[in-house]
Amino acid sequence: MGGEAEKWVLMVTARTPTNIAVIKYWGKRDETLILPINDSISVTLDPNHLCTTTTVSVSPSFDQDRMWLNGKEISLQGGRFQSCLREIRARAQDVEDKKKGIKINKEDWQKLNLHIASYNNFPTAAGLASSAAGLACLVFSLAKLMNLKEDNSQLSAIARQGSGSACRSLYGGFVKWCMGKEENGSDSLAVQLADEKHWDDLVIIIAVVSARQKETSSTSGMRDTVVTSALIDHRAKEVVPKRIVEMEDAIQKKDFPSFARLACTDSNQFHAVCLDTYPPIFYMNDTSHRIISCVEKWNRAEGTPQVAYTFDAGPNAVMIARDRKTAASLLQRLLYNFPPQSDVDLDSYVIGDKSILQDAGIKDMKDVEGLTATPEVKDSILSEKSKGDVSYFICTRPGGGPVVLADESHALLDSVTGLPNA
Amino acid sequence: MGGEAEKWVLMVTARTPTNIAVIKYWGKRDETLILPINDSISVTLDPNHLCTTTTVSVSPSFDQDRMWLNGKEISLQGGRFQSCLREIRARAQDVEDKKKGIKINKEDWQKLNLHIASYNNFPTAAGLASSAAGLACLVFSLAKLMNLKEDNSQLSAIARQGSGSACRSLYGGFVKWCMGKEENGSDSLAVQLADEKHWDDLVIIIAVVSARQKETSSTSGMRDTVVTSALIDHRAKEVVPKRIVEMEDAIQKKDFPSFARLACTDSNQFHAVCLDTYPPIFYMNDTSHRIISCVEKWNRAEGTPQVAYTFDAGPNAVMIARDRKTAASLLQRLLYNFPPQSDVDLDSYVIGDKSILQDAGIKDMKDVEGLTATPEVKDSILSEKSKGDVSYFICTRPGGGPVVLADESHALLDSVTGLPNA
Repeated sequence: MGGEAEKWVLMVTARTPTNIAVIKYWGKRDETLILPINDSISVTLDPNHLCTTTTVSVSPSFDQDRMWLNGKEISLQGGRFQSCLREIRARAQDVEDKKKGIKINKEDWQKLNLHIASYNNFPTAAGLASSAAGLACLVFSLAKLMNLKEDNSQLSAIARQGSGSACRSLYGGFVKWCMGKEENGSDSLAVQLADEKHWDDLVIIIAVVSARQKETSSTSGMRDTVVTSALIDHRAKEVVPKRIVEMEDAIQKKDFPSFARLACTDSNQFHAVCLDTYPPIFYMNDTSHRIISCVEKWNRAEGTPQVAYTFDAGPNAVMIARDRKTAASLLQRLLYNFPPQSDVDLDSYVIGDKSILQDAGIKDMKDVEGLTATPEVKDSILSEKSKGDVSYFICTRPGGGPVVLADESHALLDSVTGLPNA
Repeated sequence: MGGEAEKWVLMVTARTPTNIAVIKYWGKRDETLILPINDSISVTLDPNHLCTTTTVSVSPSFDQDRMWLNGKEISLQGGRFQSCLREIRARAQDVEDKKKGIKINKEDWQKLNLHIASYNNFPTAAGLASSAAGLACLVFSLAKLMNLKEDNSQLSAIARQGSGSACRSLYGGFVKWCMGKEENGSDSLAVQLADEKHWDDLVIIIAVVSARQKETSSTSGMRDTVVTSALIDHRAKEVVPKRIVEMEDAIQKKDFPSFARLACTDSNQFHAVCLDTYPPIFYMNDTSHRIISCVEKWNRAEGTPQVAYTFDAGPNAVMIARDRKTAASLLQRLLYNFPPQSDVDLDSYVIGDKSILQDAGIKDMKDVEGLTATPEVKDSILSEKSKGDVSYFICTRPGGGPVVLADESHALLDSVTGLPNA
């Protein structure tokens, strides 16, 4: 160990995307190692709109491992954090920063303490896989700090032990989490199926749905499903393996109708096994159901899928439109059916890639009020009730994987004190 | 044929109960004969609170078959009515009414026309299996009119061709619809497992839930499920057969915990396969979900089930309480969590067996407003929103099967004209 009077702080800042599964992970065969009962496939979301930024730092002056999430200190004592920290420290290498005159030998990492600060550019509580992006970013940034030789796929097996779906956030584009066969979980890791440029027509709109009830955590939910559902085994062993093959093929061929059919039916089946759990788990609510009806009616009217939908362990809808033009039409339909409450302005109601809003020809709330019913819903009953059922929409697209932010201006920790920046 | 100047009218009036499945029927293997893909088991509901009354009449003066439902003439041209009429006429026997001087030879039934009037003592559109009671009553009353030799089980195979679940309304108490093996459907019929006196502790409370969306008909819904669900086959072949055996056993032993577990999990699984259908079918809504949560929390708090719930193809909850005392506690919980809108009076909000309301110590709306949260829900958030989510509650119990109403005062048709009474 070196540096002047042991007062140095070494830092790395990285940014990691969140991801949305289109073939769902639900159910573990090993609770501690977080080994799933089936493969899953996800789309990585553009980190410009949804990501976690994490700064990890090490200094001989730190007297314990500490972590801050969105500016608030949180405990690192949880088994999942500890698993990740242990696995990464075990693989740490020699690190030398000649400019700063710092040299850390790999065995020193066991003694050195870490400070970690993490920040989500979207609401943590909104049910948008913040833990996936967060754990992936923790593992990725620590791996860079400690100079690990492992590639992203090997790192994904470490992130997996922090939060299962985190392993899929180690890559951009389209990612498969292979369930693996080994008891130690070494082959339960993520591989990239295609990068984000492969199918760049796709546009994603997320409806953040107002939830009235506290939700079942996915950890306890999937445990209950594995123990009590009479259908989960059949899903994991018979249904998903075929869908994985078909989904890989649909992605390679950019076959949107197949992609949409598989994504929608697999989301629905995941929620079906939740309902088949005892006591039953409900993640979707009436607003989620109405969003599905809206998309399904349109898809049927067009004769071929325009939009796929998928829902994770909460009421939020993630909709994937086949192209920009379709996304603009989708946004019109969504704003017509789910207008904001009167005190909400458009700028905070549709966030992310606002160019979709421009494509839809919507500049202000008057344009929203001027929207008319589309042909496929003309016999539906729309009530005032729908106002406020959606909190806001996020427009985004498939995006890239983790990156190191070399520019120190992105750091969340002070380079001298190692404490969070104000 | 006889009678003075062919002006006679011969009538039979009967009353038939509705039923609620506790192991669900969902999916046909033959659409025309209405043959199911699995056995089902139901509880017959007390006809004093939920029943159909039907008067069937025959006269040489009738020039065509005609039917009135709740006072309004409806078409009898549908294939299902025609199936039932054809099957019954084929089994008609000689009928003689010496008092009226009427004699009908069995071959005459092919030429004679019928007038049928049917009346539900509950809202037809409320999703309370009105077609089951209706078709069962049609078949039962015609069988009496035409002096059929078939027993109720054989009649159930005819009613089945009108509406699948109608076959289970031919008996009181606990009824099993055996799916049968024959291609012609002759062994797909109902048998009584136990009569209504066998387990007379049970009390049933139905929450008629306000629906905002038009529902998928069960006929098209189950067809879509059979064609598109990846789980329905596993349910029908692997899951239900075991549950049927267990449910029969639970009913014979009056084992409420097993009865409740089976009824709840099978209702949930039926809705799970609906969700696994493509496009997905949603019958339960947020109010249904909240009712389930209310019951599940209470059951868990007590350590053993107090109440079972089951939902058919709609949002209404049918709750089965283990005894009167539990039913009174349940009604308190329901009225606390789902109070009526301010313009609704208690007398029309809780209908049926009002003695449960008395047992609950509730005489007026002030008593409803005075209800307090029960321990198991103390951490839940209850909002004003819940007012009006339930339209009304019906208190009832398991009840008896079809009966002929000999007293002519019950007739829905005029004994001279054969037209509906005003």
